[in-house]
Amino acid sequence: MSFNTFGHMFRFTSFGESHGAAIGCVVDGCPPRIALTEADIQSHLDKRRPGQSRFTTQRQEPDTVKIMSGVFTGDDGIQVTTGTPIMLMIENVDQRSKDYSEIKDKYRPGHAGYTYDAKYGVHDYRGGGRASARETAARVAAGAVARKIVPGLIVRAALIQMGPHKIDRTRWDWNEVDKNPFFCPDAKQAKFFEEYLDGVRKSGSSVGAVIEVVAEGVPAGLGAPVYAKLDGDLAGALMGINAVKGVEIGDGFATAAMSGEENADEMRKDSKLGNAGKPVFLSNHAGGILGGISSGQPVVARFAVKPTSSILNPRKTVDRYGNDTEVSTKGRHDPCVGIRAVPIGEAMVACVLADHYLMHRGQMGEGTAWPFKPRA
Amino acid sequence: MSFNTFGHMFRFTSFGESHGAAIGCVVDGCPPRIALTEADIQSHLDKRRPGQSRFTTQRQEPDTVKIMSGVFTGDDGIQVTTGTPIMLMIENVDQRSKDYSEIKDKYRPGHAGYTYDAKYGVHDYRGGGRASARETAARVAAGAVARKIVPGLIVRAALIQMGPHKIDRTRWDWNEVDKNPFFCPDAKQAKFFEEYLDGVRKSGSSVGAVIEVVAEGVPAGLGAPVYAKLDGDLAGALMGINAVKGVEIGDGFATAAMSGEENADEMRKDSKLGNAGKPVFLSNHAGGILGGISSGQPVVARFAVKPTSSILNPRKTVDRYGNDTEVSTKGRHDPCVGIRAVPIGEAMVACVLADHYLMHRGQMGEGTAWPFKPRA
Amino acid sequence: MSFNTFGHMFRFTSFGESHGAAIGCVVDGCPPRIALTEADIQSHLDKRRPGQSRFTTQRQEPDTVKIMSGVFTGDDGIQVTTGTPIMLMIENVDQRSKDYSEIKDKYRPGHAGYTYDAKYGVHDYRGGGRASARETAARVAAGAVARKIVPGLIVRAALIQMGPHKIDRTRWDWNEVDKNPFFCPDAKQAKFFEEYLDGVRKSGSSVGAVIEVVAEGVPAGLGAPVYAKLDGDLAGALMGINAVKGVEIGDGFATAAMSGEENADEMRKDSKLGNAGKPVFLSNHAGGILGGISSGQPVVARFAVKPTSSILNPRKTVDRYGNDTEVSTKGRHDPCVGIRAVPIGEAMVACVLADHYLMHRGQMGEGTAWPFKPRA
Amino acid sequence: MSFNTFGHMFRFTSFGESHGAAIGCVVDGCPPRIALTEADIQSHLDKRRPGQSRFTTQRQEPDTVKIMSGVFTGDDGIQVTTGTPIMLMIENVDQRSKDYSEIKDKYRPGHAGYTYDAKYGVHDYRGGGRASARETAARVAAGAVARKIVPGLIVRAALIQMGPHKIDRTRWDWNEVDKNPFFCPDAKQAKFFEEYLDGVRKSGSSVGAVIEVVAEGVPAGLGAPVYAKLDGDLAGALMGINAVKGVEIGDGFATAAMSGEENADEMRKDSKLGNAGKPVFLSNHAGGILGGISSGQPVVARFAVKPTSSILNPRKTVDRYGNDTEVSTKGRHDPCVGIRAVPIGEAMVACVLADHYLMHRGQMGEGTAWPFKPRA
Repeated sequence: MSFNTFGHMFRFTSFGESHGAAIGCVVDGCPPRIALTEADIQSHLDKRRPGQSRFTTQRQEPDTVKIMSGVFTGDDGIQVTTGTPIMLMIENVDQRSKDYSEIKDKYRPGHAGYTYDAKYGVHDYRGGGRASARETAARVAAGAVARKIVPGLIVRAALIQMGPHKIDRTRWDWNEVDKNPFFCPDAKQAKFFEEYLDGVRKSGSSVGAVIEVVAEGVPAGLGAPVYAKLDGDLAGALMGINAVKGVEIGDGFATAAMSGEENADEMRKDSKLGNAGKPVFLSNHAGGILGGISSGQPVVARFAVKPTSSILNPRKTVDRYGNDTEVSTKGRHDPCVGIRAVPIGEAMVACVLADHYLMHRGQMGEGTAWPFKPRA
Repeated sequence: MSFNTFGHMFRFTSFGESHGAAIGCVVDGCPPRIALTEADIQSHLDKRRPGQSRFTTQRQEPDTVKIMSGVFTGDDGIQVTTGTPIMLMIENVDQRSKDYSEIKDKYRPGHAGYTYDAKYGVHDYRGGGRASARETAARVAAGAVARKIVPGLIVRAALIQMGPHKIDRTRWDWNEVDKNPFFCPDAKQAKFFEEYLDGVRKSGSSVGAVIEVVAEGVPAGLGAPVYAKLDGDLAGALMGINAVKGVEIGDGFATAAMSGEENADEMRKDSKLGNAGKPVFLSNHAGGILGGISSGQPVVARFAVKPTSSILNPRKTVDRYGNDTEVSTKGRHDPCVGIRAVPIGEAMVACVLADHYLMHRGQMGEGTAWPFKPRA
Repeated sequence: MSFNTFGHMFRFTSFGESHGAAIGCVVDGCPPRIALTEADIQSHLDKRRPGQSRFTTQRQEPDTVKIMSGVFTGDDGIQVTTGTPIMLMIENVDQRSKDYSEIKDKYRPGHAGYTYDAKYGVHDYRGGGRASARETAARVAAGAVARKIVPGLIVRAALIQMGPHKIDRTRWDWNEVDKNPFFCPDAKQAKFFEEYLDGVRKSGSSVGAVIEVVAEGVPAGLGAPVYAKLDGDLAGALMGINAVKGVEIGDGFATAAMSGEENADEMRKDSKLGNAGKPVFLSNHAGGILGGISSGQPVVARFAVKPTSSILNPRKTVDRYGNDTEVSTKGRHDPCVGIRAVPIGEAMVACVLADHYLMHRGQMGEGTAWPFKPRA
Repeated sequence: MSFNTFGHMFRFTSFGESHGAAIGCVVDGCPPRIALTEADIQSHLDKRRPGQSRFTTQRQEPDTVKIMSGVFTGDDGIQVTTGTPIMLMIENVDQRSKDYSEIKDKYRPGHAGYTYDAKYGVHDYRGGGRASARETAARVAAGAVARKIVPGLIVRAALIQMGPHKIDRTRWDWNEVDKNPFFCPDAKQAKFFEEYLDGVRKSGSSVGAVIEVVAEGVPAGLGAPVYAKLDGDLAGALMGINAVKGVEIGDGFATAAMSGEENADEMRKDSKLGNAGKPVFLSNHAGGILGGISSGQPVVARFAVKPTSSILNPRKTVDRYGNDTEVSTKGRHDPCVGIRAVPIGEAMVACVLADHYLMHRGQMGEGTAWPFKPRA
């Protein structure tokens, strides 16, 4: 039981709040002898970092990660993991607490401030304390380590909807994702988003988004049939990202309207080099997971991010003392927090997969793969 | 780390497969001195039980639960929990393994059979082994205990979509739910579902569904801001139900298309007797959870159930030996497994809430509620 | 967090009380495709079973175990584990609750009755409820499964002291252990124990004992340096057996009086066939564990069992209502509960080792062994 | 499952190695609104700090702790916990890695170096990496937080044996403990230890010790009857301290030689003001724990610390490449590591008690105490 630890065999415990000295995490369970440098982690953090375009909060945080423990440089000069806890620390730099003085005693509608206070009796008005999206930097850092654990794993994500506007999936191009400030795989729609989000920002409002994560190279067999379902853990991980209100695997909610014939992914013996004789699926409605266990197809998950509650336009609320009032958030905020959720979604999926990879290896040993020598 | 245990402080470990001797669970962490009889549990199991209408599998299972441990009858003659493990057992009666002989070596597309075999090297063709929905009886039994833990808690669920057909929410009537074989709160649509599902069944096909669960009486403060988010745990629990492919909290995926103004639930000082002076929300887009912590409003979750893969119409597949073949499932199956998912969804939500209630009480003690005497 | 689950990757959850319908456990995390029959388990239960000699309680319990889930018989006719929960159930037969009526409202000094009541507010006077040693049958059953997981593992235990009387270790013969009712490896001392314990029993008293467990075939590398120390987990497991008050690893308390030179187990390059070139230790003061990690030497643990508090001779106590009184236990009890602790100690050690074996395999993969190709 | 996290509801995850940038821990689950400053923690760290007398390692580490997260100073100017993770960091200052160059490739007999390498394939020769006693500073820091959780709890420890020399318990005076460099409660024996340990140190050798920990103010009811036994968890925690080889609760190994009459702590109705009418024990052989649950009496635990393996006198060993060699440790080491184990033992006991206090409160709620209104 833990409030701030994620995962089982590959696990990390995060710490730090928006306006404290530092944030970070302790990664536990990582196998030893894996090459790991700060640069490996920094590249992912840089994607999530605020202040990179006019479409994200203007808070200026370099988000420089330091590896404080768990690595060792041997005689060959290569820095590797030791199998012991890897502490990753990011110091907070641009905290500007004064921005929050105006809303010090007011709850923002749609924000965690009220529930946080109802739980802890502590109102850390400075950026939301632990409820701040700043904590997600720790997840991205842990995710960068996780990516190194499953051989051949590639986890990528993209923004596929902003406000009511979806992308055109026929124009999907992974190469576009890093070329626009929205992680959008549809170059044309990305152009449109630029103008659209400028309007939202200038009007003092905010919008939601939908993100899709695709993991390739996931071996068949990860997960378990009941309470360690791979999709159950993915859903928990993605719903656990700030502001997420919905999660789907594969065809998701659309499957409710499908027939059994449409939904079932048919199988055939593969003839492709390297996979010859093995089963291959003719479609992937399941999103790579059947009965809670990975099928060897790409794992596909989507999640919806609500619009941030920190908006300039005033809303009715109460203060800590129970009085009716209005609140308007003037701090530096994201008009679409869904954008920066893209690297976070990737990180959470990578962590879930690394965790299940190690759990599977523990119970099954290595070298187990379909087909088992038929016996039972 | 556990493959078959659900929860943290209120937890249950389930056992049993479709065609074994029995299924059931061990409930651990239940507070002592709570009145508990088999009848308390049986009433919930009866809702999930197969063979009750022509719309669910014709397998005949009485699903009679026995409390095998963890209760004690004192001098007052009342049977109460003792605070120690409550073992709940349901013997399997109508197993008819022969039904499966035809599909013994074939994987059903969309079914867990292939991934299960890829993981374990064991192909329990008799009803899917542990992947069978039969395991969910254990969840319903555990949920019946969970309901007794949070004072004043009411958890109800209803089927709100079958195939492409949604209910009319303006006709929602909780009293209708138990009056039709679909747990549908819209009497008119329930009539239509009867005819519609008959058609699906006769055509040898199957359809999906969407279920909504509403929990009332959830105190504010349950959950935690990061990896013990109440919505994160609900998402994991609901996605962990067989055949579920999507989960939403509150307005869910619709929030992606909303503005910050639309989505934020405004607050006012309540004047209602019994709540006077406390904050009250003017809407519930959030589904009762903000920043991973309950707000005191009803908790609302929805999940999508895919159509069962066990259909009469033949599909392309491979067998255990890698040969191309076709499969058609003649066993007794549900044309819409989403129907029986209604009591299961209720049970999982009740278990998550009981678990968080005890965790919250552990960290916070009792008698903590908004407003704290202002201090920090 | 769990009150009734033992272990991490190999884990079991036990249920049942002395005078309920049944006791047993759910074993989770066992690898699939391991041959397992009820007979494999029964042989270990038979060692712990009461009523086998005049030196143990006369309660007559056949302790017949049934495997209720988690196995499957394939086409080869061999029953194997499936990798899913193995539920092991032992029905209670000879409960004779009337024996306890006299002590219904009195706390036995030295017994868990008072603390149990102080915790739960439930006084299950019928044999101690969950505090009964009867629960240990579940541990022995789980241990029988655990033994099958680590290849080449042999776990044996013996009684090495009864009351103040120690065995002569120079006469240690494992073959003697099953030839006397005390699991004593010193045939001569076993003869003496017979007479000695008869005296204790007839005088209405009880005595303590010390048990030694030796595990051979434990590969080097199990455990971890900090909070998953192999010796830490062994100590928790053995202290968790009913009536145990002390645990030692290797030379244990005697090391306090040693010098660094005496205590350190020196190493040399081995020349023995099969181990040639590998390091070998010249002594085993450490009991096979250094820095919390197994060294490849036999793991040696000892634990002290206090005399049972259920004695015929009257003792001063209070009743549930706070009144001074006296109590004398006339039920069927063991004059030396340490005897039946021998198979329980073996079982707990086997479970800890199986658990660490799977955890190690998860983090490290297979085929890792000293020496690693020197790199870091 | 976790390698570097201790505890369940009150838990901490430690990080850092002997010669890395920093060590520390993340404390999770601490209740909010508890006053906490760095000074509260520092006072305990100062007791464990090396280099304070000629009897401990001459490594000079100020061991200055910084609270990096989890506290908040409200309008009243008092710094309190927030209920979120408390990260405690201690930077390493005096690392002097060169001391280790001579033993870089040699395993020290009795040291974790070989098993660590056998497990991880990483040989962090600089002070033992994670196996270093330096990690225990994190435990002491976490323990300082734990002490604030259970109201009225006092945890103290003392060294009661050094080498073969025990203290005279009739001279026990808690006030003496902080007046000598050995944490010895017997002033006269402390004088003797000074001379004795000087001899050991000058001879290049080392000796073991026995420590006793006493916790007063532990409420009755903490723990659970089976796998969450309070004594089981204490045993695991204390055996998990570096170099510990034995643990006892109450009369420990001596109970093996006792009769049931001697061992059972008789009870009487108390007449003392404040406790009148409640049960009181006439002795405490049990060390405050019966059936795994606290009785309300002082909890008493003892543990044996072996002599350090880092000695000047040369011992036979092998190197990483399998060659026979000799090793002699010239680094700065403790002639009796048991001395600095005193504050560590206190910390571990405080952590176990805080953890069980919160677990108990979660399952039972508050205000439960003997006698319950008789019902069951």
